Amino acid sequence: MDIEKRLTSLREELKERGLDGWIVTGTDPHQSEYVAPRWRTREFISGFTGSAGVVVITLDKALLWTDSRYFIQAEKELAGTEYQLMKAGTEGTLDPWQWIEENVAARSSIGVDAECISIELFSKLSMQFSAKGIELKAMDDLLSPLWEKRPDIPSTHIWQMSAENSGRTSYDKVEDIRGYLRENGLRWIFISSLDDIAWVTNLRADDIPCNPVFVAYLFISLTKVVLFVDKKRFEGEREILQDVKQVFDIKPYEDAVESLPKLARGAGCYSPERVSEIFHKALSGKKNLLTQDITTKMKARKNKAEMKGMKLAHIYDAAAYVSFLARLDWNGRYTELEIAERLEEERRKIPGYIGPSFNPIAGYREHGAMCHYSASEETSSEIDGHGLLVLDTGSQFEFGTTDITRTLLFGNEATEEEKRDYTLVLKGHLALSRQHFISGTRGVQLDVLAKQYLWQHGESFFHGTGHGVGCVLNVHEGPQRISSALIDVPLMPGMVVSDEPGVYKEDRYGIRIENLIAVKEESKTEFGEFFSFDVLTLVPYEKRLIDKSLLTMEEIAQIDEYHQSIFKAIHELVDKDVLKWLEVATSPL
Amino acid sequence: MDIEKRLTSLREELKERGLDGWIVTGTDPHQSEYVAPRWRTREFISGFTGSAGVVVITLDKALLWTDSRYFIQAEKELAGTEYQLMKAGTEGTLDPWQWIEENVAARSSIGVDAECISIELFSKLSMQFSAKGIELKAMDDLLSPLWEKRPDIPSTHIWQMSAENSGRTSYDKVEDIRGYLRENGLRWIFISSLDDIAWVTNLRADDIPCNPVFVAYLFISLTKVVLFVDKKRFEGEREILQDVKQVFDIKPYEDAVESLPKLARGAGCYSPERVSEIFHKALSGKKNLLTQDITTKMKARKNKAEMKGMKLAHIYDAAAYVSFLARLDWNGRYTELEIAERLEEERRKIPGYIGPSFNPIAGYREHGAMCHYSASEETSSEIDGHGLLVLDTGSQFEFGTTDITRTLLFGNEATEEEKRDYTLVLKGHLALSRQHFISGTRGVQLDVLAKQYLWQHGESFFHGTGHGVGCVLNVHEGPQRISSALIDVPLMPGMVVSDEPGVYKEDRYGIRIENLIAVKEESKTEFGEFFSFDVLTLVPYEKRLIDKSLLTMEEIAQIDEYHQSIFKAIHELVDKDVLKWLEVATSPL
Repeated sequence: MDIEKRLTSLREELKERGLDGWIVTGTDPHQSEYVAPRWRTREFISGFTGSAGVVVITLDKALLWTDSRYFIQAEKELAGTEYQLMKAGTEGTLDPWQWIEENVAARSSIGVDAECISIELFSKLSMQFSAKGIELKAMDDLLSPLWEKRPDIPSTHIWQMSAENSGRTSYDKVEDIRGYLRENGLRWIFISSLDDIAWVTNLRADDIPCNPVFVAYLFISLTKVVLFVDKKRFEGEREILQDVKQVFDIKPYEDAVESLPKLARGAGCYSPERVSEIFHKALSGKKNLLTQDITTKMKARKNKAEMKGMKLAHIYDAAAYVSFLARLDWNGRYTELEIAERLEEERRKIPGYIGPSFNPIAGYREHGAMCHYSASEETSSEIDGHGLLVLDTGSQFEFGTTDITRTLLFGNEATEEEKRDYTLVLKGHLALSRQHFISGTRGVQLDVLAKQYLWQHGESFFHGTGHGVGCVLNVHEGPQRISSALIDVPLMPGMVVSDEPGVYKEDRYGIRIENLIAVKEESKTEFGEFFSFDVLTLVPYEKRLIDKSLLTMEEIAQIDEYHQSIFKAIHELVDKDVLKWLEVATSPL
Repeated sequence: MDIEKRLTSLREELKERGLDGWIVTGTDPHQSEYVAPRWRTREFISGFTGSAGVVVITLDKALLWTDSRYFIQAEKELAGTEYQLMKAGTEGTLDPWQWIEENVAARSSIGVDAECISIELFSKLSMQFSAKGIELKAMDDLLSPLWEKRPDIPSTHIWQMSAENSGRTSYDKVEDIRGYLRENGLRWIFISSLDDIAWVTNLRADDIPCNPVFVAYLFISLTKVVLFVDKKRFEGEREILQDVKQVFDIKPYEDAVESLPKLARGAGCYSPERVSEIFHKALSGKKNLLTQDITTKMKARKNKAEMKGMKLAHIYDAAAYVSFLARLDWNGRYTELEIAERLEEERRKIPGYIGPSFNPIAGYREHGAMCHYSASEETSSEIDGHGLLVLDTGSQFEFGTTDITRTLLFGNEATEEEKRDYTLVLKGHLALSRQHFISGTRGVQLDVLAKQYLWQHGESFFHGTGHGVGCVLNVHEGPQRISSALIDVPLMPGMVVSDEPGVYKEDRYGIRIENLIAVKEESKTEFGEFFSFDVLTLVPYEKRLIDKSLLTMEEIAQIDEYHQSIFKAIHELVDKDVLKWLEVATSPL
């Protein structure tokens, strides 16, 4: 590996610049959750290929922080380098910022790429470090000059959502945003989030694996709309380009930093969480509103066309999923990767299917107990006799996005404990999805519904209960969530969230059950307006894992009705060989 | 009434001082929820006797804001004066601060008594008004000189909690507070909340009706402890005085403002919500920490002795309550006030009973639909045939405090709707109290448990589900709550909260069921530490209002077990004539 060479070169550059250290956040200029190869800076400088982590390099130390799911992988990948693995979240381990505070001398300077750190994080760290006399400098990227054959900025094929599927033209969306600006006495907004830009423009691409976005910046003022994007991407797509040009002025992606200060006249706004420090610096001296992007809120509430697409996506996806389940040889010997691939094969048969909405998780036995386990060729277990498999997968269609987890039983009958745990998770999952709630209710208020039965047995889970899901967009989107975090975002009609409680027994097994559910209007009474959930996902639960004695009559009816609705929705879409399986799987408990 | 005279005198004084208006907050120098007659300034200047409201007086206007429960009363009481009633919370009505912003000219000055406005409110209003060019001045009270025969500062009999009932000496509590100061690099704390001071000193009195507190300020530094209190109160209580003097230096109550700047050396802390602006002004120029009083958090977690006292109080209170229910002539003609008085009579028979912990609420039929209805001689309905009665009362004992609501059925059998509503409220009440929860859980996360069944039927309630309760202290205390408010205070073992869902049908009836419940340790598992609730209140539910068909087996068992536990706890404490009633009331559903 070239890691040592790269570290040596970086340190020479640090000395030249009078710097004492360098931080690699591992994100991209858009603060994306997942990044394109172009921005895999963490991997370039450390060799670590995991999806989360922070690198700090000083003149005599190199450290990588990552979390528990990557400890083993990181140890392997860092072996033979000078890197020290910092096990984030374990007792006695400082976080990277505390480590810098305690190990970097006063009057030192630490650098970071101004393009790949959010305004918010930069501001927080600057304050934190300056209390110790350490200066944080946001500057040009020092890794780039060392990076031979650095992947290009992605430029995958751009396509346009049909009017039928988007439901609203980009022109209308721009006007909505202008309405917001006017109401708030603002003249412009600068948007950096790739999924927000894709949503406003009704354009999609494949710049980040599983996230159908394209690399761009968007500036909207009361009089101008500028899309900073590589124009060459529209070659061969004349019609799309014509359409886009009617609403957007197109300027080169690279011009954004230079152009923004000229465009941004008067008071405007941008998101400190999603916009990079480099833009904040470029705009410095101007008084702007740092606020969450209004487009994130707008995008979260699916319009009728989007909701129709989401529902259709779930019907098609269910047909593929049920075909996969029906055709699986339940005594066969698959690896975890093969299981995921079998499902993918069924999905690929569906017209309009684009690809997975995230890397599938297939965790057999103890692998299922690791929430974010991702099978690789090396770790992929072979299904071999009795065991639970957590299968968390999702699809992108041209009209909608899915995300589903089912826990499958292989081999012998389930143990009492497995059945009890599955049933407790299922009870919480059902309780959340059937709950009506008054307008104004936030996710944190509903979270306990999914946890109540587990808590009653001294069990719990420590991931969120529900995340927002985009429409032909990122499988994780905000601003709403269902979790224990005190986030003041009411659940509103049109929002789609996951409902995915689980339980994880270390070294033994995991259980997770996930449906997507959509908020809808339920009733207006003398007490106010009430909302409820539509269940979008349409795949049967594993009946052999249900302990019926733990269910109330209401829960049994809820499951039976759900299974009936599945049969009704997809029985005409599946082949004959699958129909028999579907009948059994959806028969009453 | 002298209201017009008083207004005239006040306006003369305003002109003399160059002021354009005056604000009366109606609170006392300790920001108490309820105030002693001495500080009924709102009533003095307006004639309005309700317990909540704000008065604003300008050179040509006089306005009183109060909320819906007082609209009728306020109209009556303000009749014949120049006061304009501002119905707070109704559409199109500005709040007092907005009204000032819009109706007071720029470059005007508005005054307020610096002793009776919190630092927080003063700071908020100053900023808000200054944006409109209006200055808010915190100063000496302009009402006092006009107030002939103003009631004295209260000075009721001071008594001492026994060591057995307090569980911890005031010396130990002061040392705990010093531990907190040291840990946070602070040298002193200034405490103004009367219940916090009563808790630290283990002293009680009767300065505010139903709140067994005494008027004082408390200063604690690493080396000094000064209690600002009228020393004459200890006359005839030599032993208590000796005890108190071992820990506290006693200085006159009136000296607090002048003394504090001399005592407060170095960095210290005080609560912006509970301390008055006059102290902040006196300390200005010093850099102090504005934070919630640490004593509020300490007080919230009852120690073993306090918990024992709370439990005992609930057993005794239940015996009295059940005797009241058993001896009531259910076909008799009582007024609402008489019902409350009958209950009070039974309570007065108990050794250690001090008095009510708040003004009882007895709301028959449509009066029950007003959450905070308080019967007066004028409004007190006579029980006359079929109807529900919401009876919300509580007791102060020498060892604990109770707060209980039961909804009683008079006359004919309940209607289907009444039964359904009672049962939905009961189901939520039961669900909350039986829930186990992982450490770190805040009240907002559990709130839905009490509301879930009502929401499912398009019903809800709009008061908090649970408030903290003091031990021989205020019936409302913080910092924990169970409500929809996003308050980041985890429920911890030893905290006592109410569990009081309800439903209110305007002009028809109200239903509320309230128990006090105490957080306790439940289990430690591989998933973490779990807590649950002990139910303190021990009075049967109204079985004739329960629709058993809406209950699960688990709920029926929970009610039956609760009723059995009541019988077990109090059957030896009640007279023979009551026992028969108790047997029936606690027999299985």
